Amino acid sequence: MLSEIRIVLVGTTDQRNIGSAARAMKTMGLQELVLVDPQEIPQGKAQALAAGATDVLANARTVDTLAEALADCTLVLATSARNRTLDWPQLTPREAGEKAIQEGLSGAKIAIVFGREASGLTNEELQQSNFHIHIPANPDYSSLNLAMAVQTVSYEMRMAFLAAQSQPVETEQEYPYHREIESFYEHLERVLTHSGFIIPQHPGTVMTKLRRLFTRTRLEENELKILRGVLSSLEKQMPKR
Amino acid sequence: MLSEIRIVLVGTTDQRNIGSAARAMKTMGLQELVLVDPQEIPQGKAQALAAGATDVLANARTVDTLAEALADCTLVLATSARNRTLDWPQLTPREAGEKAIQEGLSGAKIAIVFGREASGLTNEELQQSNFHIHIPANPDYSSLNLAMAVQTVSYEMRMAFLAAQSQPVETEQEYPYHREIESFYEHLERVLTHSGFIIPQHPGTVMTKLRRLFTRTRLEENELKILRGVLSSLEKQMPKR
Repeated sequence: MLSEIRIVLVGTTDQRNIGSAARAMKTMGLQELVLVDPQEIPQGKAQALAAGATDVLANARTVDTLAEALADCTLVLATSARNRTLDWPQLTPREAGEKAIQEGLSGAKIAIVFGREASGLTNEELQQSNFHIHIPANPDYSSLNLAMAVQTVSYEMRMAFLAAQSQPVETEQEYPYHREIESFYEHLERVLTHSGFIIPQHPGTVMTKLRRLFTRTRLEENELKILRGVLSSLEKQMPKR
Repeated sequence: MLSEIRIVLVGTTDQRNIGSAARAMKTMGLQELVLVDPQEIPQGKAQALAAGATDVLANARTVDTLAEALADCTLVLATSARNRTLDWPQLTPREAGEKAIQEGLSGAKIAIVFGREASGLTNEELQQSNFHIHIPANPDYSSLNLAMAVQTVSYEMRMAFLAAQSQPVETEQEYPYHREIESFYEHLERVLTHSGFIIPQHPGTVMTKLRRLFTRTRLEENELKILRGVLSSLEKQMPKR
């Protein structure tokens, strides 16, 4: 499904941002990068920032126009600052992830378009998309670096992808039997009574509070063993009564 | 609420990453940056990458140790790759955002810790946190740039913040300060060493396992008081050494 998602960078000024974008994509499992009319051809500087994602960079396709980059796509999402003149359907990155993965499941080819560092996408470019993605940034300073925007949107693609796989394989801890836990509480109470922390005539709520604590944490078998060991070692040090 | 969240960068090698992190923070509405033992002092290169967030950089505090950076915090989240040797409670960035905002609502001070570019955080540093944040990256290439990780986690903080603005406030438990918890662990270790359960020449993993247990349960203030009382009562019963 992630393989159906294409990242399209339009008119990028600084090749280093192309390299960083490639790295961001690959960390989230995206592979396909298309460059529309980049102002610098990605070379050494871009490669340095791509780090372990030079393959994404090497496989990137360069085209002249946005229309070419989108020709075979069925869903086009374009990132955009809030736009007052163009009233287009808007998605958060999270909603965009859900939509992209949902459509990708049925074989759609999806493009996510990012504009120029300084000026974004033109209105004409924005109108070539089905939806706009708006990252809900700080209104006082909403200027995400281009590659940071790629990272954020790619992250939501991956999160939606992982959610769609929905096969949580959990490794289980070994938990003790109830009787073992009760026997630990008895041991604990004995030691605390011996130490004088619990006064038999005024038992109060100490044991209740400690039970609450250990119940909440859900003691594992190996932890119970350690705690029993601790209690035994303390008992040995205390004077006989 | 976002103002209660502190970003802590530990041992950063490249000052440019500090600048980019500052920019990432500010785009998501975060302001407070603490640098622990940075390998380069952020100067011109960092400022260039901070772009419109030089104020975040200028207000950043530099300290020598992670403990100093966390002393007044009640919730500490540390970003980490999946860690097989240290089995700590883990959150996704989304879960971390929800937790941080929820606790921030009741006035908690929250730290999110990011490690070194090449080597991350040490196990000792990771153990100073309540939860680990694991970004569910591509297993074949999980190497997010440091500032990209800051962007991703900060984004989830903002998303949770925006979601919480339309929700009712829940009353929360009082949680102790990080320094109080650390002081409890020191006390516990002292008592267990005294009792002979921990052998100083072979410290082993006892304290790690106990830390993990109490971290998972998230000790409340009144519980910490009881545990300190228990330790003091035991100490009194043990023979002087």
